Amino acid sequence: MNGMLNFEELFQVIQSSLNELEIGSTPIELYDPIKYSLEAGGKRIRPILTLAACNLFSDEIKPAIAPALAIEIFHNFTLLHDDIMDKADLRRNMPTVHKKWNENIAILSGDAMVIKAYQQIIQSPALNLVPIVELFNKTAIEVCEGQQLDMNFEQLNSVSEADYLEMIKLKTSVLVAASLKIGALAANASEIEASKLYEFGLNLGLAFQLQDDYLDTFGNTEKFGKIIGGDIAANKKTYLLVKAIELASNEDLIIINNLLSEKDYSREEKIANMISVFNKLDIRTVVKTKMEYYYQLAMKSLEAVNAVSEKKKNLIEFAEKLMEREN
Amino acid sequence: MNGMLNFEELFQVIQSSLNELEIGSTPIELYDPIKYSLEAGGKRIRPILTLAACNLFSDEIKPAIAPALAIEIFHNFTLLHDDIMDKADLRRNMPTVHKKWNENIAILSGDAMVIKAYQQIIQSPALNLVPIVELFNKTAIEVCEGQQLDMNFEQLNSVSEADYLEMIKLKTSVLVAASLKIGALAANASEIEASKLYEFGLNLGLAFQLQDDYLDTFGNTEKFGKIIGGDIAANKKTYLLVKAIELASNEDLIIINNLLSEKDYSREEKIANMISVFNKLDIRTVVKTKMEYYYQLAMKSLEAVNAVSEKKKNLIEFAEKLMEREN
Repeated sequence: MNGMLNFEELFQVIQSSLNELEIGSTPIELYDPIKYSLEAGGKRIRPILTLAACNLFSDEIKPAIAPALAIEIFHNFTLLHDDIMDKADLRRNMPTVHKKWNENIAILSGDAMVIKAYQQIIQSPALNLVPIVELFNKTAIEVCEGQQLDMNFEQLNSVSEADYLEMIKLKTSVLVAASLKIGALAANASEIEASKLYEFGLNLGLAFQLQDDYLDTFGNTEKFGKIIGGDIAANKKTYLLVKAIELASNEDLIIINNLLSEKDYSREEKIANMISVFNKLDIRTVVKTKMEYYYQLAMKSLEAVNAVSEKKKNLIEFAEKLMEREN
Repeated sequence: MNGMLNFEELFQVIQSSLNELEIGSTPIELYDPIKYSLEAGGKRIRPILTLAACNLFSDEIKPAIAPALAIEIFHNFTLLHDDIMDKADLRRNMPTVHKKWNENIAILSGDAMVIKAYQQIIQSPALNLVPIVELFNKTAIEVCEGQQLDMNFEQLNSVSEADYLEMIKLKTSVLVAASLKIGALAANASEIEASKLYEFGLNLGLAFQLQDDYLDTFGNTEKFGKIIGGDIAANKKTYLLVKAIELASNEDLIIINNLLSEKDYSREEKIANMISVFNKLDIRTVVKTKMEYYYQLAMKSLEAVNAVSEKKKNLIEFAEKLMEREN
């Protein structure tokens, strides 16, 4: 496990470490949903970033494995509980835990997952244990704040761009940022270098979430892996909608509000009509510009990191892959 | 804050430390329920035990305050989420969080509370930080297991005495035990001495939970603070019912099963008839004997602790007060 590992190798390290994890066995109603959640797959982006950040500063990635697992378990816990709150039936094309079992089991097995995450994070290297756990705690609280803001937005007619960006920062970006910084701290990197990686992650996370919003409406169904238009159908306050409302003429605003409030449209009509408004307002360019802005900020932070440039290339490639960029 | 503190003083330390705690402010939907839960009162038994255990070995209780708060916050988190699962409307005569706000807010603010607990536990003394957090983690997982077993028991017709005792051990006693052991570790007591306090807490917790079962049926309403018979009305599988089913003649069993399944009885009839069966089987003596058994085991463990006997008297008095014993 020495030297520089590529992302496929890091993915395999995460997969086999998750497989070796002792989750627990009885009562099965508590532990089966945890195993189900962790085995359901996912791209393992966050723990891979933790290992990669560690690998930037050290040939030995072993110290970063426990914190990487902590972050992945925590992330899957948030999905499990968010799915209850959002009344989501499916996650990664499988029934959600509260659908497959029931809501009580989903609440309790989620609770146990948080504790399982802490069982990993406390195994972080002794030298930086307290800073690592403190960052993990701070980030975990912020993710809860982001989820609460997201739920609050559902009750609002409109959301400002600044409020929207603050919400996705808390709900998504801070965990990506912490994944990287914790990996750096596990390699005993300095606070200064670790913080540059945090900034890299924060901006990459924002770019990534904006892309997620973009792909839900403008993505290639086959490549994206889910049917487009889900956010529009659900009146979700995405960056696209936030900006469309901001940029709309009075006339456009009437159309948007009709689409948001009218029940008479079919799903297809609603999606097609909203996309027409988005196209009229050139929302694609607006989103792409903002994505690119955050992506470039991310790259600048990464450039500033004091590490072997060959190793940094590895992270740049991963970021490019994440952003589905061809260059 | 030096020297030996009595339990009223320790209670005040906990109250003022909780008041000084920075919980957070926005979004208010996340933080108000946390403040509401922590301000709702309660006897603060667990954190008092943490401070008292520390005080057994050290005149300085300050190192035990953060872990004591962690335990109290965690305990209140379990009540918050248990109340959702049990669909309870009231807690300490106040509306439960999911009733006062809603279920999503109760799930998410509970999640944030767990993290808040970890923000405290990580402030434990550096010397024993890892053993303290590891015990906290192990205990927290066991409490989840206990809650799951308790929910499983609701679906069963009968539960064995051994299974019942295992459930209350996990759901209640291990946290009492860990409260004491963590306090001892915060005072840098040896693993051996700390473990004796763990045994003390485990047995005290069992005695305490059996008393809770006893008082719900045979308690003095005024003194107990809630109307008796709630467990009987709800068909709750308490130690009383578990033993009654075990000891019942075929004839008694028919009566018990009728009371459990018939909807035709009024609440008062059901309670009165079940109490008759309990009295016929002398369940009061059965429970009292078992309580006394665990209480004596607890006392033996405490006797074995290598600490000033004057200080141990303090803990004995608290245990006696908890058990509402006159001697």
